Amino acid sequence: MSTDLHSKSIVIDGLIISDFNRAVFEDMRKGNLTAANCTCCVWENFTETMRNIVRWKKLFRDNADLISQVYSTGDILKAKKEGKTGIILGWQNVTGIEDQIGYLELFKELGIGIIQMAYNTQNMVGTGCYETNDGGLSDFGREVVAEMNRVGILCDLSHVGPKTSEDVILASKKPVTYSHCLPSGLKQHPATKATLN
Amino acid sequence: MSTDLHSKSIVIDGLIISDFNRAVFEDMRKGNLTAANCTCCVWENFTETMRNIVRWKKLFRDNADLISQVYSTGDILKAKKEGKTGIILGWQNVTGIEDQIGYLELFKELGIGIIQMAYNTQNMVGTGCYETNDGGLSDFGREVVAEMNRVGILCDLSHVGPKTSEDVILASKKPVTYSHCLPSGLKQHPATKATLN
Repeated sequence: MSTDLHSKSIVIDGLIISDFNRAVFEDMRKGNLTAANCTCCVWENFTETMRNIVRWKKLFRDNADLISQVYSTGDILKAKKEGKTGIILGWQNVTGIEDQIGYLELFKELGIGIIQMAYNTQNMVGTGCYETNDGGLSDFGREVVAEMNRVGILCDLSHVGPKTSEDVILASKKPVTYSHCLPSGLKQHPATKATLN
Repeated sequence: MSTDLHSKSIVIDGLIISDFNRAVFEDMRKGNLTAANCTCCVWENFTETMRNIVRWKKLFRDNADLISQVYSTGDILKAKKEGKTGIILGWQNVTGIEDQIGYLELFKELGIGIIQMAYNTQNMVGTGCYETNDGGLSDFGREVVAEMNRVGILCDLSHVGPKTSEDVILASKKPVTYSHCLPSGLKQHPATKATLN
């Protein structure tokens, strides 16, 4: 049933983190998933993240009958048409750029489409949802948001602290997203602090 | 006169190394240069080379009326049509990939179109033209040539030792190039050792 519904729809999984391999991609096809945001950086630094992308490039080659890389929205429609699942590479943290704004443009060119501004704890950009205090977006973070806007990388606010989230929403000139969340009505959890009322 | 001839022709400068800035690009336009191989790695490691590419991305943005980045031969024709000089980013050494074959694919995607296999001295791939001995292409070097063939990066043999040059010519499944050279008839020079008779 859901497969039928999925076959007629554009269905994008907001976030998948996994030991990605062919079996995972086969399951994506079974579910008629149009596209997915697949994590390729959580705590990794610049070089480690580049090496993760190298591994992804091989996954794209070895599983070209099941998946294709998404660089633009057009690529999502193309994947749908070709009966493949489009992979949007994404990050759950900003560690991959270290302290270099300029790296964002290179990562965008390599296919990074979405970056979460913090992952539970504090980083150079802002504060995660598990921290005791959240001072909001840093000045470096404001430059990061502006550059993500410019090159076309979506700001993800999942796992981000409430003040930092609000600051990103106000600073961003483009729509932002919560790619994955836990509604407080279902379970009280630090991430629910991010809910803006 | 030469400007007239250039305006009717496809003229590619095989190698330029410079403190690249707007004045250099203006001169390229004055000469009606269609495209140029511009060096962005000589001794730099992976991270330093990536930072050089970041600087180039800004040069492309800031001088978009004069230059455009070349990723494919089509981009050279496009630059010609638009009255700009197409910039082919290239390396004069392989230090930018350190010991990682997989980095070549990422650099190709960022626009690296040509790599010189060695710069005067020995590296992990082979030997430069100033060395006393030249043992030829290393096993790692053979993998580098194969991967450059696969992703579409041209092997440059300028500054490369004679035995390494010969090995690359025999190993490469695609044409190779001497982007710049010094004919021995004009001046005796170590690089002329690379001349194959």
